[in-house]
Amino acid sequence: MIAKLTRPVIAAVIALSAPALHAALPAAAEQPPKKPLTMAEALAASTPAEWRPLDPRNTVYLELAAGRVVIELAPRFAPHYVANVEALAREGYFDGLSIIRAQDNYVVQWGDPDGKRPIRTAQRTLAAEFERAARSLPFTPLPDPDTYAPEVGFSDEFPVAVDPKLGRAWLVHCYGMVGAGRDNDVDSGGGTELYVVIGHAPRHLDRNVTLLGRVVQGMELLSTLPRGTGPLGFYEQPEQRVPIKSVRVAADVPEAQRTELEVLRADTPSFAAYVEARRNRHEEWFKVPAGRLDICNMPVPVRARAAASAAK
Amino acid sequence: MIAKLTRPVIAAVIALSAPALHAALPAAAEQPPKKPLTMAEALAASTPAEWRPLDPRNTVYLELAAGRVVIELAPRFAPHYVANVEALAREGYFDGLSIIRAQDNYVVQWGDPDGKRPIRTAQRTLAAEFERAARSLPFTPLPDPDTYAPEVGFSDEFPVAVDPKLGRAWLVHCYGMVGAGRDNDVDSGGGTELYVVIGHAPRHLDRNVTLLGRVVQGMELLSTLPRGTGPLGFYEQPEQRVPIKSVRVAADVPEAQRTELEVLRADTPSFAAYVEARRNRHEEWFKVPAGRLDICNMPVPVRARAAASAAK
Repeated sequence: MIAKLTRPVIAAVIALSAPALHAALPAAAEQPPKKPLTMAEALAASTPAEWRPLDPRNTVYLELAAGRVVIELAPRFAPHYVANVEALAREGYFDGLSIIRAQDNYVVQWGDPDGKRPIRTAQRTLAAEFERAARSLPFTPLPDPDTYAPEVGFSDEFPVAVDPKLGRAWLVHCYGMVGAGRDNDVDSGGGTELYVVIGHAPRHLDRNVTLLGRVVQGMELLSTLPRGTGPLGFYEQPEQRVPIKSVRVAADVPEAQRTELEVLRADTPSFAAYVEARRNRHEEWFKVPAGRLDICNMPVPVRARAAASAAK
Repeated sequence: MIAKLTRPVIAAVIALSAPALHAALPAAAEQPPKKPLTMAEALAASTPAEWRPLDPRNTVYLELAAGRVVIELAPRFAPHYVANVEALAREGYFDGLSIIRAQDNYVVQWGDPDGKRPIRTAQRTLAAEFERAARSLPFTPLPDPDTYAPEVGFSDEFPVAVDPKLGRAWLVHCYGMVGAGRDNDVDSGGGTELYVVIGHAPRHLDRNVTLLGRVVQGMELLSTLPRGTGPLGFYEQPEQRVPIKSVRVAADVPEAQRTELEVLRADTPSFAAYVEARRNRHEEWFKVPAGRLDICNMPVPVRARAAASAAK
């Protein structure tokens, strides 16, 4: 029965977890939401003002033959790394380089396998930006305990951990987060070699490597790549590598060619309602609400901007 | 520089996390391990007696054109579901069916898309086996707090949560765990439609669906499948589905054709040393040890049995 496929295991659970499906949400802002809300209801009840468009100055496009990966950068957490990745993109550093590593349940990584690519205006290495001061940081905390940090939540819609005693904050390694590879020297990174998390959150990397952004669209283009058979998932043969057509700063791409996305702002009632709907699922399928939410089990809602217009 | 590829970002971190690399470990049981150990040292110092072979009576092979996926079943937690999946395999129920769903950062699912496959000796549905009594259960606890449960640890080397107050225990949805799909009725599952976790642990599913085993080899054959473009990641066109050649109980497969694996027993000193090595990484690359370990960030070491012989 094809019908069975429309309500299979855990069907209701993530019906709204895919950006494509968010984009398909009907506008329902005028309807008073019933309590308790499902994730679908929380998003359907959101107002256009609760969504913010991606800033093209802080967005880069990783262009592969299979399509475009949209990466939102996090200048508040890694200002120098973000500026350097943009400088590298603007001088065409990544164009023609390759994805060189795909390790199952861990990371996909790209860069210059030969280390011969010249760098003109950008820096090859930078001082580490593992963490920053927590003070003056916008922060929407999650209420539930975290295994690794005293507090977790969202800042600029990025997953963040905070240590109030130390007064420090840092981005955490959730699925889709993008970081800058380094060697044993903490200051040996800089953004010439980037990786993205494709598996269960490797939180032990937090504060050990500079995270600088996250994939907001096109993850499946990276997560489905054949895994490398060499140590650490590196591709053993050059022909196994996946060519990078280009990396561009969205602001440098003609508007007509940009991918217009918007993110549900973490400081909004609809974001709070969405978090609560994920902590306790009220879809009919569920029998035992978790009553908890792991920071990395909270993908921030992203949708095509067209949906926003439609919702007006 | 190719050399750079041998120590890239987070290289040291998971040098030992892949079964293939475990199998390649040199025997070092006779060397007194230094403290503190790295993961590599903890495994290298293990003795052959600390490893247990997979029980072919509780192991099934999912055979795809791309290769074999080895699934260890968990009869202690889902006895009736395990027996039913084996009965379904023995009557050839899965042979010629397909993988019908691949949702990014969530699950891959297989079964009968048409619901027409007859069942002869097995059951189509079974009463839920979401949890069990914690009493008399072998349990190796992890010391760190868990977001979702009062206690977590390992039982038969499966990731488990325990609620001492309720006296209940249940398998948890870590990467690679295998469960039985159901509709809204909790007793509508049974094993005819199975799913495997391919992303960040969807722990909100714990105690809502029957988990019955885990993939111990061949995850990359499932995690790299093209994602479905239909709702919930279902393949929209029949030709997109991935054919299943067969599902066999290992005990029914000639010994020469079996995949001989062994698992590091959770009740051993080397398992404890490995856990500690993951809680606080001592590889040179690390600067800030996490001091914590998430239950789903602790893949149980698995290796080819050949390595055991070599280690003797």
